[in-house]
Amino acid sequence: MDASAGPPHTVLDGLGDHTCELAIAIDTLVDGVHFATGTAPADVGFKALAVNLSDLAAMAAEPRHALAAITHPQAGEALARHWLAAFEQGFGALAQRHGVTTRVALTARGPLCVSVEALGTVPRGMALRRAGAVPGDCIVVTGTLGDAGLALSGQCPGKDSESSAWLRARLARPEPRIEAGIALRGLASAAIDISDGLIADLGHILEQSHVGAELHVDALPLSPALQDLVPRERAWGLALSSGDDYELCFSVAPRHLARAEERLRRLACGCTRIGTVTPGGGLQCLRGDGSRFAAPPGYRHFS
Amino acid sequence: MDASAGPPHTVLDGLGDHTCELAIAIDTLVDGVHFATGTAPADVGFKALAVNLSDLAAMAAEPRHALAAITHPQAGEALARHWLAAFEQGFGALAQRHGVTTRVALTARGPLCVSVEALGTVPRGMALRRAGAVPGDCIVVTGTLGDAGLALSGQCPGKDSESSAWLRARLARPEPRIEAGIALRGLASAAIDISDGLIADLGHILEQSHVGAELHVDALPLSPALQDLVPRERAWGLALSSGDDYELCFSVAPRHLARAEERLRRLACGCTRIGTVTPGGGLQCLRGDGSRFAAPPGYRHFS
Repeated sequence: MDASAGPPHTVLDGLGDHTCELAIAIDTLVDGVHFATGTAPADVGFKALAVNLSDLAAMAAEPRHALAAITHPQAGEALARHWLAAFEQGFGALAQRHGVTTRVALTARGPLCVSVEALGTVPRGMALRRAGAVPGDCIVVTGTLGDAGLALSGQCPGKDSESSAWLRARLARPEPRIEAGIALRGLASAAIDISDGLIADLGHILEQSHVGAELHVDALPLSPALQDLVPRERAWGLALSSGDDYELCFSVAPRHLARAEERLRRLACGCTRIGTVTPGGGLQCLRGDGSRFAAPPGYRHFS
Repeated sequence: MDASAGPPHTVLDGLGDHTCELAIAIDTLVDGVHFATGTAPADVGFKALAVNLSDLAAMAAEPRHALAAITHPQAGEALARHWLAAFEQGFGALAQRHGVTTRVALTARGPLCVSVEALGTVPRGMALRRAGAVPGDCIVVTGTLGDAGLALSGQCPGKDSESSAWLRARLARPEPRIEAGIALRGLASAAIDISDGLIADLGHILEQSHVGAELHVDALPLSPALQDLVPRERAWGLALSSGDDYELCFSVAPRHLARAEERLRRLACGCTRIGTVTPGGGLQCLRGDGSRFAAPPGYRHFS
């Protein structure tokens, strides 16, 4: 039982062939909990697949197949079929981009719940896991952080601005960092995707690796849109504690850092070194002057 | 999109190794829809895995791994953890019996929804599918039919009797017919599990095989408990139209029938020939005297 570390996912020992292992993830999105009631069904479809592909990305797997089982309050009626057709547009668009074969079915009438399972392959022995970070490793993240969090807060000033639209797209249609995960095979010592906020998710790496970390808040990668719209300290808070960005956070030994950075620079997301793994002492967030920055509490699944 | 043929499941082409293919199934059980509110969580756990293993059984796959993602109204509170611990007892008991490795996680607060994904293996080219029945094939079912349907109707007379208790157990803890599916490799021409009622599920075989069928109602296998409690015609109606029995229904060429029967006789469930595949003409249910028996409508996912 695991009631705090997010949706279940794993590398399946003993399956696959002599070259590949299988990685699998499952997650459920519930109307009104994981997406706002009334969210465009195409966006729900995109995101339902994206969050699972993001779990595969964090295991360095290449996605191959996905199934979606949906319960809908109006299942069997035309309205539900329209909803499903739009859902499949978003789901299918992302699937096609990653060469993922899919099956989607409305299974019963019920509260609007979307459950997706995604299956991928990873060369034998190359899967990334949460355990494996060691003191001295660099802590690196892909992309920028806090964007989805600001969009989710509903406090985007200037709703019609280009920056606001970009932030809302980051929330509605996160890009699973599949290529980044694959690029990190053989380099990263541990990895996770940031669904619940950097502090919460990096926390899982630290816990499972039995280490601590120091993060430098002025190194946190902030998008121009986020910097446009909120003051710096609030941006740091969002980058540390808000969820839904679906970037990767990984640890990498200093001798592999340059190679990892070089590989990720070629991808659209890029990467940024934000801290260092320590032998213990929990997770500290430090300003440039060495003073501690107190991050707001992160997303809690059950709050 | 497939909004009528039940939860999605498939054999994954291009995965597995040179000897085995992978079969996968996903399904969601919703409180108040798929199980009565207040159902013992251990029973929910058992059934959530059973319905997915039953899908694997119908593909002749051997189950290997299962993941469960659960949303619960009181996630994060002690009550939910107690619920989850009991859920895992039932889920784990069935998993252990079939050598299935598992992960279970509470993923978020929300309506009580249990989503399970099950993954299995089947020797390359040996998976059973819904398409493949040809005119002249015999139609055979495992076990007995209508038991769960009577329990579900809440009309079990003599609630405290041994018969009623047995029927309620058939509903609460269906036995996925894994061994039967495996025994049918290389013999059955098509197969499905009976989750929505014989007529509805055999209908999927007929539709996908482009054939019809004649069923002989006096051949329908009825348990002593069912025969004890309801008159014969009502028992036939339940056997034809009620769901939740999770027996297998398959077609088999006459030349393979004796061998299939011999293999299934060795298993606890046994099997019964109930009809014949015809070139067309839909699905006819006939009494011993050749007159037609009108079956009640079956379970509809969206009714």
